[in-house]
Amino acid sequence: MTQAWWLNPCKPIDSHAVEQAEARQQQLTKPAGSLGRLESVAVQLAGLQGQLKPTLDQVWIGIFAGDHGVVAEGVSAYPQEVTGQMLHNFVSGGAAISVLARQLGAALEVVDLGTVNPGLDLKGVRHLNIGPGTANFAVTAAMTAAQGALALQAGRDSVHRAIAGGAQLFIGGEMGIGNTTAASALACALLDCPVVQMTGPGTGLNAAGVSHKAQVIERALALHSAQRGDPLQTLYNLGGFEIAALVGAYLACAQEGVAVLVDGFICSVGALVAVRLNPACRQWLLFGHCGAEPGHRHVLETLDAEPLLALGLRLGEGSGAALAVPLLRLACDLHGQMATFAEAAVADRPA
Amino acid sequence: MTQAWWLNPCKPIDSHAVEQAEARQQQLTKPAGSLGRLESVAVQLAGLQGQLKPTLDQVWIGIFAGDHGVVAEGVSAYPQEVTGQMLHNFVSGGAAISVLARQLGAALEVVDLGTVNPGLDLKGVRHLNIGPGTANFAVTAAMTAAQGALALQAGRDSVHRAIAGGAQLFIGGEMGIGNTTAASALACALLDCPVVQMTGPGTGLNAAGVSHKAQVIERALALHSAQRGDPLQTLYNLGGFEIAALVGAYLACAQEGVAVLVDGFICSVGALVAVRLNPACRQWLLFGHCGAEPGHRHVLETLDAEPLLALGLRLGEGSGAALAVPLLRLACDLHGQMATFAEAAVADRPA
Repeated sequence: MTQAWWLNPCKPIDSHAVEQAEARQQQLTKPAGSLGRLESVAVQLAGLQGQLKPTLDQVWIGIFAGDHGVVAEGVSAYPQEVTGQMLHNFVSGGAAISVLARQLGAALEVVDLGTVNPGLDLKGVRHLNIGPGTANFAVTAAMTAAQGALALQAGRDSVHRAIAGGAQLFIGGEMGIGNTTAASALACALLDCPVVQMTGPGTGLNAAGVSHKAQVIERALALHSAQRGDPLQTLYNLGGFEIAALVGAYLACAQEGVAVLVDGFICSVGALVAVRLNPACRQWLLFGHCGAEPGHRHVLETLDAEPLLALGLRLGEGSGAALAVPLLRLACDLHGQMATFAEAAVADRPA
Repeated sequence: MTQAWWLNPCKPIDSHAVEQAEARQQQLTKPAGSLGRLESVAVQLAGLQGQLKPTLDQVWIGIFAGDHGVVAEGVSAYPQEVTGQMLHNFVSGGAAISVLARQLGAALEVVDLGTVNPGLDLKGVRHLNIGPGTANFAVTAAMTAAQGALALQAGRDSVHRAIAGGAQLFIGGEMGIGNTTAASALACALLDCPVVQMTGPGTGLNAAGVSHKAQVIERALALHSAQRGDPLQTLYNLGGFEIAALVGAYLACAQEGVAVLVDGFICSVGALVAVRLNPACRQWLLFGHCGAEPGHRHVLETLDAEPLLALGLRLGEGSGAALAVPLLRLACDLHGQMATFAEAAVADRPA
């Protein structure tokens, strides 16, 4: 097994830049606090980037895809071959995240960690073939420790490429038929919360489908209950290759000093695993979107996370985070470009 | 008095474009409904623009400024000369809305309807001098019917310039020390709701200031109670020049067929007055932001409005609406550019 790099320390925040940025916000020509969340976000980014006026010109979107053995239990509305078909759609420019990346001028990387079609060879996709999807976690561990370490490292490798490309913000996205089942199971095991609270329709199950999905998760939780206290083993038991890659990516970002914008439910569960493994990574994570999956809000509360958007998305692919990028950029623009009271000769209110 | 142009019919929505856009959304490579609010917004814009694939390249931001006689009652945290100082800041590029307009590539027009400094002559500002601010509505009507008609027409004139400039979306913004007091009073009169529910800190009153502001509003409501049933006269009694201009602008947009993105609390009260005067204008209004002012949510509920953002802003200037523009643009991009299941050879789920 590879060394546990994910336990290495995270980069500290630049507290001097935070103080300077807070002072600047007080001097801009607006009532104090009147830009709401945009003020705190600009200050946070100043601390993460270590400069008074942060910028987010270079955004990297890494999409991680994998198949899930638990789909054999009938937990998804879509057939499993869609995972591979969507890989093609990502690189052809027709998927939602492809359109968003193009409009944002963001780099888009697509990593196939392992699908049910190991013969896939798509131009523009990195095929890693960690396995033909995970094993069915309702009957055995989803992945071996060796597979898990490879998936974590795949996320870290994507971050290293992002850094080489000059990325100032990392967005992880995911694709994998069945992966809300894995994410719900993981969240239940880590948060010790009722399965019904954490189980939703995913891409479109009806009520009977959601009920069946919850039963499958109950069975899996019982099977793997002995290892509930171990977040890494729980990830290997109940996760997916793409979820493990997200965990590795988030931890690498925090270690290397790249701000992360977390997407929806599945990515938030990945963030939860990352924080359980290495709590200091939390301060490198911003949250883009609160999605429609019912368990998402609970996971966010556990992480003390306030996403910028809540538009009822339930797509994945990093789309909710991508949609929040213009808000972060405008927060930086306002912070960097607004006049101060002194510059504009505007009266501040009496102290 | 001028003719009551604001009662003229609004342009009907293109229901054929709505149907076509809805059908297209069902064919895009995503689970049905998984883009949440972005789907309904794209369909609505298709109906407003009368085309399957709407676009929002040309955005017009009209800022309306005016002073308020009710400030004599001590209802604002800021001195009244700030209204004029901020006019200068808008055209100098240092205000929040100036930064946002620049980043969005939006046209920014600044209209001074009447401030306490009638000698103001700022390059780039249209000075209309309807009056030296409104009268103190705690003791008399805020404006005469003649002044009110001029302010309504000023909003309409801005829309006509926007249309001449090719605008596909109109954002109205406002600036005026004291104007949350006017907006709260108007909303209470129109909605018949308790003053405490509708009165907040504005740009930064403390609790005692909010309490005093509520008492001033109570007094004004009692003074003008005989005309509560008449929305136009209520606007003249309790409104501001810039609020009347917003009402005129929203109505002109609906008549001429330009989509509106409504900003925060004061603009939403302007939208409420517009809808009371000419209810069919409602379908031309989209809502950008739910702000921090406590009455805003109630006004939005009355209008059956769901804003795209809720970031705790309380700035005005059109800033909350401007921040939502990238979301509307990305909604159009996704709607127009994503591949269909057939184009991408992706399996839709079984019917």
